[in-house]
Amino acid sequence: MIEAAGIYLTETDKKNITAADFGLSDIKKEGVQILTLFDTDRMAAKILVLLPYQTEPEHWHPPVGDDPGKEEVIRGIWGDLTFYIPGEDTLEKGFIVEGKDLCYTMRNEVVINPGDQLILPPGTKHWFQAGERGAVMYSFSTKVTDLMDRFTDPQVVRDTVIEG
Amino acid sequence: MIEAAGIYLTETDKKNITAADFGLSDIKKEGVQILTLFDTDRMAAKILVLLPYQTEPEHWHPPVGDDPGKEEVIRGIWGDLTFYIPGEDTLEKGFIVEGKDLCYTMRNEVVINPGDQLILPPGTKHWFQAGERGAVMYSFSTKVTDLMDRFTDPQVVRDTVIEG
Repeated sequence: MIEAAGIYLTETDKKNITAADFGLSDIKKEGVQILTLFDTDRMAAKILVLLPYQTEPEHWHPPVGDDPGKEEVIRGIWGDLTFYIPGEDTLEKGFIVEGKDLCYTMRNEVVINPGDQLILPPGTKHWFQAGERGAVMYSFSTKVTDLMDRFTDPQVVRDTVIEG
Repeated sequence: MIEAAGIYLTETDKKNITAADFGLSDIKKEGVQILTLFDTDRMAAKILVLLPYQTEPEHWHPPVGDDPGKEEVIRGIWGDLTFYIPGEDTLEKGFIVEGKDLCYTMRNEVVINPGDQLILPPGTKHWFQAGERGAVMYSFSTKVTDLMDRFTDPQVVRDTVIEG
């Protein structure tokens, strides 16, 4: 899907693709595929892929030590993608994962078309979901502190990673 | 060139493309075209374009206040691109701008093919140049402090920007 979206990947990139199911063990429903392009002590860039109708669970990036928390900028590359952030309930294109109303509390829908960008300041609760084609996006950020991410769903275990 | 390299640009992106001649007034020789994708208080992403045989003058990113200096990661997208950084003189594909030997002191050549990445820690002197096709690349960085950049060429004036 990444290559189909026009991104040139090296052999090293391809080996670095992983998948995360957040310990929920139903990755086609709740999960994300991740290619980390680089990850330094100060910043990182990833390509994230969602399968059709796959949902990344609601989470936020808290302060870590001297860091006010990870700032993230999303840029849409391809596909059908909606983000959910704080604000008025405008959820229309997307859906709440069945039986998980309490785990998806942000309902302000932002449609991300190719080239659209969304800045997520530290601490912003967010989740995102693909429509019928799936979705490919960039995630640019300050220093990655994924293991510190907080999730609304108490069943999430952040460090479950399935090698791709 | 950016679109030909497979990058989807919005109308806003297209309006944001600028060109810099660094006050040297010979942009086809020494200059760069810049599309800033985003630029927050903590990080930025740009797409840089070099015309065939165009050269970006040698410079480095010094400390600014509490910031140790801008860290930059280059990722090749398309074309013929070489970077020059500290190390042994291996200059082979590229050339020094005529009459400017003292302005281009780094001679360690790094060929950047599509998907290749180069991390430039703060303070690293560097310049870069396109071959016959020109070049398109990403520049990801911590907070942009372009007006603080230091150049080897004393004739450079950093804030000359030609609107695209």
